[in-house]
Amino acid sequence: MVIAAHPDDVELCCAGTMARLAHAGHDLVLVHMTYGDKGGRDEPDVLARTRHQEAIDSAAMIGAVVDGRFCGDLELYPDDVTTKALADVWRKHDPSVVFTHRPDDYHPDHRITGELALAAGAQVAQSTPIWFMDTVGGVEFYPTDYVDVAATLDLKVEMLECHKSQMTWMAAARHASMPYMIRSAAGWRGLQSGMAAAEGFQPARAGDAWPFEDVTSLTFDKEAAR
Amino acid sequence: MVIAAHPDDVELCCAGTMARLAHAGHDLVLVHMTYGDKGGRDEPDVLARTRHQEAIDSAAMIGAVVDGRFCGDLELYPDDVTTKALADVWRKHDPSVVFTHRPDDYHPDHRITGELALAAGAQVAQSTPIWFMDTVGGVEFYPTDYVDVAATLDLKVEMLECHKSQMTWMAAARHASMPYMIRSAAGWRGLQSGMAAAEGFQPARAGDAWPFEDVTSLTFDKEAAR
Amino acid sequence: MVIAAHPDDVELCCAGTMARLAHAGHDLVLVHMTYGDKGGRDEPDVLARTRHQEAIDSAAMIGAVVDGRFCGDLELYPDDVTTKALADVWRKHDPSVVFTHRPDDYHPDHRITGELALAAGAQVAQSTPIWFMDTVGGVEFYPTDYVDVAATLDLKVEMLECHKSQMTWMAAARHASMPYMIRSAAGWRGLQSGMAAAEGFQPARAGDAWPFEDVTSLTFDKEAAR
Amino acid sequence: MVIAAHPDDVELCCAGTMARLAHAGHDLVLVHMTYGDKGGRDEPDVLARTRHQEAIDSAAMIGAVVDGRFCGDLELYPDDVTTKALADVWRKHDPSVVFTHRPDDYHPDHRITGELALAAGAQVAQSTPIWFMDTVGGVEFYPTDYVDVAATLDLKVEMLECHKSQMTWMAAARHASMPYMIRSAAGWRGLQSGMAAAEGFQPARAGDAWPFEDVTSLTFDKEAAR
Amino acid sequence: MVIAAHPDDVELCCAGTMARLAHAGHDLVLVHMTYGDKGGRDEPDVLARTRHQEAIDSAAMIGAVVDGRFCGDLELYPDDVTTKALADVWRKHDPSVVFTHRPDDYHPDHRITGELALAAGAQVAQSTPIWFMDTVGGVEFYPTDYVDVAATLDLKVEMLECHKSQMTWMAAARHASMPYMIRSAAGWRGLQSGMAAAEGFQPARAGDAWPFEDVTSLTFDKEAAR
Amino acid sequence: MVIAAHPDDVELCCAGTMARLAHAGHDLVLVHMTYGDKGGRDEPDVLARTRHQEAIDSAAMIGAVVDGRFCGDLELYPDDVTTKALADVWRKHDPSVVFTHRPDDYHPDHRITGELALAAGAQVAQSTPIWFMDTVGGVEFYPTDYVDVAATLDLKVEMLECHKSQMTWMAAARHASMPYMIRSAAGWRGLQSGMAAAEGFQPARAGDAWPFEDVTSLTFDKEAAR
Repeated sequence: MVIAAHPDDVELCCAGTMARLAHAGHDLVLVHMTYGDKGGRDEPDVLARTRHQEAIDSAAMIGAVVDGRFCGDLELYPDDVTTKALADVWRKHDPSVVFTHRPDDYHPDHRITGELALAAGAQVAQSTPIWFMDTVGGVEFYPTDYVDVAATLDLKVEMLECHKSQMTWMAAARHASMPYMIRSAAGWRGLQSGMAAAEGFQPARAGDAWPFEDVTSLTFDKEAAR
Repeated sequence: MVIAAHPDDVELCCAGTMARLAHAGHDLVLVHMTYGDKGGRDEPDVLARTRHQEAIDSAAMIGAVVDGRFCGDLELYPDDVTTKALADVWRKHDPSVVFTHRPDDYHPDHRITGELALAAGAQVAQSTPIWFMDTVGGVEFYPTDYVDVAATLDLKVEMLECHKSQMTWMAAARHASMPYMIRSAAGWRGLQSGMAAAEGFQPARAGDAWPFEDVTSLTFDKEAAR
Repeated sequence: MVIAAHPDDVELCCAGTMARLAHAGHDLVLVHMTYGDKGGRDEPDVLARTRHQEAIDSAAMIGAVVDGRFCGDLELYPDDVTTKALADVWRKHDPSVVFTHRPDDYHPDHRITGELALAAGAQVAQSTPIWFMDTVGGVEFYPTDYVDVAATLDLKVEMLECHKSQMTWMAAARHASMPYMIRSAAGWRGLQSGMAAAEGFQPARAGDAWPFEDVTSLTFDKEAAR
Repeated sequence: MVIAAHPDDVELCCAGTMARLAHAGHDLVLVHMTYGDKGGRDEPDVLARTRHQEAIDSAAMIGAVVDGRFCGDLELYPDDVTTKALADVWRKHDPSVVFTHRPDDYHPDHRITGELALAAGAQVAQSTPIWFMDTVGGVEFYPTDYVDVAATLDLKVEMLECHKSQMTWMAAARHASMPYMIRSAAGWRGLQSGMAAAEGFQPARAGDAWPFEDVTSLTFDKEAAR
Repeated sequence: MVIAAHPDDVELCCAGTMARLAHAGHDLVLVHMTYGDKGGRDEPDVLARTRHQEAIDSAAMIGAVVDGRFCGDLELYPDDVTTKALADVWRKHDPSVVFTHRPDDYHPDHRITGELALAAGAQVAQSTPIWFMDTVGGVEFYPTDYVDVAATLDLKVEMLECHKSQMTWMAAARHASMPYMIRSAAGWRGLQSGMAAAEGFQPARAGDAWPFEDVTSLTFDKEAAR
Repeated sequence: MVIAAHPDDVELCCAGTMARLAHAGHDLVLVHMTYGDKGGRDEPDVLARTRHQEAIDSAAMIGAVVDGRFCGDLELYPDDVTTKALADVWRKHDPSVVFTHRPDDYHPDHRITGELALAAGAQVAQSTPIWFMDTVGGVEFYPTDYVDVAATLDLKVEMLECHKSQMTWMAAARHASMPYMIRSAAGWRGLQSGMAAAEGFQPARAGDAWPFEDVTSLTFDKEAAR
């Protein structure tokens, strides 16, 4: 299960790994905390509908289920109501591994998503491993584990391209197209790990206080190798 | 292959993991850079002989070969002669993985050993993974990988106890017996990783510039699991 | 005064130091922010009562008073109501030193407890020194001060053993008994500081903006030495 | 625009740079999040009025406008209401650059001010550069950019001296007068940068996800140089 | 002036910025500390000659002079002889800015090159700014300044392609062609700074002890902007 | 005993603390590793004689002995000969505490001095506490202990002013007079610790492997308080 802030964060941060897990036979759930209603030029209501459909289209490419959608963009707070709503989603899907943003990511919604994921996990399932995924630009993110995504990078780009509403304004804001962005990111993380393309991850410090999976037994790698 | 500074550093820092590797059928080489001639109360010559025998006795418990012994304690420098001598040892044994001290360890000999290992590796075998082992007190060492040594902790203590010449003065200097020290360390690293006893490691940054083994394929874990 | 999240956190993190302070004649207050109603297998109401009694029994061993208990586990938020309630407790006891969790500890309740303690302190008593105590596994905690607890370690274990309701499930979750955990931790922190057993602390950055006690004048050491 | 917690934080942290910007012809807005009603010995209501006037007097020395004042000291929370109120202030002034506290500053109000500024900026103007200003004692603040304030240091001190209500109790609490404090700080930051007096800044990590101004094009330096 | 370890390090780490400086009318000197005689499959003597010619061809594309060549690869030590030889080269060219490797780069030759550059600079010209350039994989390198190289990225790739002897074995060792590597790196550093392609730099801590250029006055940016 | 690189480093970094120790009745030895023959405008031989006398004059103000003087500035290397020469000095004076530069200080001579001090200490006296003193500009130096030097700051300035040969060129190079520099530094470190003037220190990581003095028992504080 991935717990991400906005509808395209999975694609930006970990879709190559998710595609490998899907190919290995895992069931995937992609939780988007917000409607994504402010990431673009349309009216919030219209945009929220558009982006929900884009997220479903993208998820369908790896057979994943979409869930979440608790509030509008930048309306997310680390409060009791949202923690419990996320805990309910967690219980419903009972994941064996969770991926989320780091609580010190650059975007307020990402940071709060990370905090909410840790709090919901503490309520529901203290022994489920939680992994933090890379940030969009990788600033102050130091992966301890790299997953080879050379085989799924094209699929990752295709998933991202489902988010048609984001392509134009993001390219203007970033001075670079989104496919260029994630290909650069994958190439760079590959450069750091001796692979042609990679995604980087860190374990949450859950290991400090309750059972911690040995990195060598993470199902996303073992399964993929079969 | 382990490249350590003094005759008892393997036992202090990674013997539990080495014992698992030995049990998994690997051939092990323990390189001690120095004679260990100043770690105690005897005359250097006498002590060097004593400690060499202690190191051989300890290594024998896991069927390991002892090599190295380039100079006296605190006479180690990161110079051309020692780098080449270590490179020759490296070529002789042609290891698939190397463990050594971090170049910012607390002890001058440990620091220089780490630098020499990186330099010798660059000369001989740029694609061999190098792992840094924990420091004696763990200060400023942040493991990214933990190996479960619950099953080999008693053997680790027995190996350490071969170093009879070190027991008394170390206990006085540290206000704690050496077995107590390594049991505390193993318990603490276990506490951090949800195991009853563990040893911690970090990859060298070799991954920055040449092929990097995926953590999931490290032979010491895969073999042990068979 | 200690401000901790759950009824057994004092015992895990700083009881050896508290015992020394008690022996030196100080009055101690142990504030538990939560009921501890979810750390175990019983119904929350029953468990909360059980753990309150366990906390009182443990505190009695060093003559300490128990206070706090503002909400259930994982129901703690850094809000106005809780900050003011904690500020009232602070005013009531008017402590000369406060110990609490770091705001980046591994557990959500610990993190929020640390934030609440800093906020309450800012409201009540800007010149009271605040010290952060170690985390359970010590991950990303770098003590700047170590207190020798060799003389009080057995008492610390006895205090922890008052928390009978926590012994079985924690041992299963952690693959190690709680006494083994704190003995390992004390041995390791001792290993770092040349003592047989120690607890580690850091000053809060209150020193950045208002009077900061010189570490050499901390009453817990001076008193204990008398 | 500066978004600071209390009425004298601008003077302590960045007034030398603001004075240079003012001299270069920029319009400046100083947003104080709180009333400053608890930084001193008077009754909150009286003190809030006094400090508001002091802030206006100080701002007048560089022709700056004062805004903000959302709540009492230590009553600030990172909630929806305050975020939106700050976003409205942001829209009203439409700044080209924003200076604020780091979200890990030493004082709770400073930390929350930093978080609110990042959240309000994300709502209003994702491409406006945000710079963090130094903390009062500089602990754990590592400037990446230094601004030469030798020419405006005296004016900075005069601005600070407008805050008459703060002079006496701060000097007692800090064992140093406030002018001595900021002259020491300016001298030290100058020492680090080869200037006689300087102020230090860091960019917010907004650069991670949206257009980031090249440091060489910051208007406060270019303008000042004309 | 760039002080780099091997003949292709300039191209990998800072050629886009050097090309901008060349276009702005600066005279450039590229110092290669080693012969580059071990980066490939040929005999050292042959390879050294080949790589020297490749370096000259590449430098010619931006009108730069090549200098240095003090010893074979991995034969570099931070000794008196080499420091003085580099100091002589420094005096000969009298550069206004120097770029070099960080003393904690991943490769032993890079690390020693960085140390030698700092030591030679201390002997010759304490007030010349020194900037550290990115590492090949960017691990543990946190740029404080980014230079836009979108306009010179193709030229950078052409310069790198002059190093024909490196193309095949590097592509095999890294699982990625060298042009792919530097395009990924430029895209990623651009992603972090809102540009289509960038190179990252850090100032040496010379600022700690002698005059430090204000970042806004660095000639490589000012000149390029004319 | 202080082991510093150049004749005025003691005055810049720790003279306030040394003065307190002297007043408390301690015997002090100031070891200058180099002649200081290149810190100024005169011929090396002349300058070395001048600075030696200045160092003696300054040391006389606190009754300290001057020793060391092994080589010219920037001719210091971490080699066997110098390590042994420093070890001999160490044995001669048999100090109870040693202060030195951090091995990652900004100046090559300072860095090598720090390394030599650690190596010599390991040879002579593993249980002698070693403390690192602040750098001149404090960059990347994070004190864990602060010593109140308000009472000895004027004396510190007078000691520094003995180094007449350094006053003019340093003031020009740094854009600030040397007394202004150390008063700013003392004020800033005081600001961080609630004192009017302070000097900052860190313990060497000797605590990682052999007996570590409890910070509360450091003689320089206890003695001074008598």
